[in-house]
Amino acid sequence: MDRFLNDNHMLMIPGPITVPPRILRVNSRPMINHRGPIFQKIHEYCVDGLKKIFKTDEGEVYIFASVGTGAMEACVSNFFNKDDRVLVLINGNFGQRFAQIANVYGLNVDTLEFVWGQYAEPEKVKEYLSKYPKGTYKGVLVQHNETSTAILNDLERLSPIIKEHGALFVVDSISGMVAAPFEMDKWKVDVVAAASQKAFGCPPGISLLGVSKEALNRANNSNLPRFYFDVRKYHESYKKGQPPFTAPISLYFSLEESIKMIFEEGLENFQKRHIVLRDAVRSAVKALGLKLVSDDKCASPVVTGVFSPEGIKPQDIIDNMRKEFGIVLAGGQSQFKGKIFRIGHLGFIGATEIFATFAALELTLEKLGYKFEKGISVKAAQKVFEENM
Amino acid sequence: MDRFLNDNHMLMIPGPITVPPRILRVNSRPMINHRGPIFQKIHEYCVDGLKKIFKTDEGEVYIFASVGTGAMEACVSNFFNKDDRVLVLINGNFGQRFAQIANVYGLNVDTLEFVWGQYAEPEKVKEYLSKYPKGTYKGVLVQHNETSTAILNDLERLSPIIKEHGALFVVDSISGMVAAPFEMDKWKVDVVAAASQKAFGCPPGISLLGVSKEALNRANNSNLPRFYFDVRKYHESYKKGQPPFTAPISLYFSLEESIKMIFEEGLENFQKRHIVLRDAVRSAVKALGLKLVSDDKCASPVVTGVFSPEGIKPQDIIDNMRKEFGIVLAGGQSQFKGKIFRIGHLGFIGATEIFATFAALELTLEKLGYKFEKGISVKAAQKVFEENM
Repeated sequence: MDRFLNDNHMLMIPGPITVPPRILRVNSRPMINHRGPIFQKIHEYCVDGLKKIFKTDEGEVYIFASVGTGAMEACVSNFFNKDDRVLVLINGNFGQRFAQIANVYGLNVDTLEFVWGQYAEPEKVKEYLSKYPKGTYKGVLVQHNETSTAILNDLERLSPIIKEHGALFVVDSISGMVAAPFEMDKWKVDVVAAASQKAFGCPPGISLLGVSKEALNRANNSNLPRFYFDVRKYHESYKKGQPPFTAPISLYFSLEESIKMIFEEGLENFQKRHIVLRDAVRSAVKALGLKLVSDDKCASPVVTGVFSPEGIKPQDIIDNMRKEFGIVLAGGQSQFKGKIFRIGHLGFIGATEIFATFAALELTLEKLGYKFEKGISVKAAQKVFEENM
Repeated sequence: MDRFLNDNHMLMIPGPITVPPRILRVNSRPMINHRGPIFQKIHEYCVDGLKKIFKTDEGEVYIFASVGTGAMEACVSNFFNKDDRVLVLINGNFGQRFAQIANVYGLNVDTLEFVWGQYAEPEKVKEYLSKYPKGTYKGVLVQHNETSTAILNDLERLSPIIKEHGALFVVDSISGMVAAPFEMDKWKVDVVAAASQKAFGCPPGISLLGVSKEALNRANNSNLPRFYFDVRKYHESYKKGQPPFTAPISLYFSLEESIKMIFEEGLENFQKRHIVLRDAVRSAVKALGLKLVSDDKCASPVVTGVFSPEGIKPQDIIDNMRKEFGIVLAGGQSQFKGKIFRIGHLGFIGATEIFATFAALELTLEKLGYKFEKGISVKAAQKVFEENM
């Protein structure tokens, strides 16, 4: 049986994810003029909704036609000057990407790297920054959820440390936003990136940037070259209810529908559901006797990393899951390549997908020679869902 | 009757345009993993197809998740060094945008501006460049089709002049590509930008960049900062059949379908059809006694600009067309604002849309007090289509 040859996949990767039918449907809505009144309403609905999701009254949220990396570049190119010193907290692949981008723009980049699978320990960040006079670092860049190592950073505890130093607090929440609680105003986040194909459950192609008042001031004084991702252009144009350039119309339809669905469920319920999904997955993995990549205290609500059992290649697990069941899992990146596989559990999914994934994973692991009691992981997941029904 | 309240619009603007049903349908196809084998096939089909459309064997074509302006920025940020002297030929709004972007990146920008509605006269470009030693300008930037003034530049005649000077030949063909003949290799075009929502008939959100070998060499020696639009990343990643970042999957489905449809019709037929559409529209406009923006010798095959009759505001024409008929026309930009309206005629459309547009335009003009013989413009369009059946 090669389930993979049809389109009925279950994308259990940490984005792009399975897009729910309601969103798929609006994605084929006929085009409208992006300079006309119907589009303007959709644009304004999205911007208002995103501000509620980002939890900001004081800041702004801009919508880019790009995937997440574009918004990461915007985090760097808008708010600094050449040779500005910045600190990048690195918990995995995307932390490294932040450092690369900052280097490309001629910033003076220092990095503070943590063991992969562990979060950015606030005490260590505090200790590090205390060695430098306040304001040494113009910005501290950090992932909210680091997809490659399946960890969630504690932004609430990092915030006072970073703000105390006088740095811009710059967050990549591309895979965290909506799924994990986020408080832009309360946590004094200055810049935050997000993207459509993660928990928003849309196709890839829209990225988002939340920008505080202070960051917007910095943007007015930054000397780095940028045009397409220049937040000043978005800021001016949004005053007229208009995107500055042609908008990715079908993806706007998707985003509008996603925001409606999030509010129908309730943002808090949406986030609680992700905690239950996370707990079910972790409980099922533990029941199988497999080792988790991240500690409980910093476990990501959207993706779980699992070390492959001794003697079994993660790629063999991934290939069998795809071929036999049409279930798509992700491999490891960088130093985790060939060591782990990752299960995404984000967006508009529930117990159904988790049950199916683990029932299939059990058959896969058995086929590859791993020993365990059949049914044990599904039972563990059932227990978590039962407790949360 | 307010036709505008439902979704059944006819977008007769020069992009985004009415997306044909086949493309709309694939745009709601379920997501697939952008790192998996199904996506790789689609990616490679698109890149191969685009090379055939761009008419290049020697160059490369890269696919960005962005709208056209992103590809325009890539035209500048990849191939030059700070303070490089470049010449921008300006025929309208998008020529000005090219100059703005080049300024933002610290290039030394000279402009050669032409009367709006006329093309970049090759003799004048030759005369201008002859005043400077060869190689003074590292690049000459020009629009293929300037959407704002509805003109088509003669790239074939500009080519030897620009190459003789030793400059990179950089072309914005965002609204020209596929609809107007284009020969990347033969015309020695070094860099060319295109986008999905023009004659490709897709939703906006994908832009394209054709890059010659010489331009790719320049990219390796350019010191301007860029990351998301860095062609070197695309070049390396494409060798493995992979986009460097998450791909805009639904828009890739659309692009694949569009390329299939273009080849089914035949690229030459596709372009001939646009000539007929152009001639029908211009003939109908002339029959109404209205003044065209562009001369016959440089008339755009995708958009026609029309001066509003004395005493009638273009916005009133546009509003009535939209409200009564659900037909969306475009206004003028910059110095043409409030003076002209524009009719887009590109993508997968035919006589039907032109007949409907002019029948509706006649009723609109009559209502606004303009005098003419009813039916005369539709008859003129009929004649052109009849001659080409």
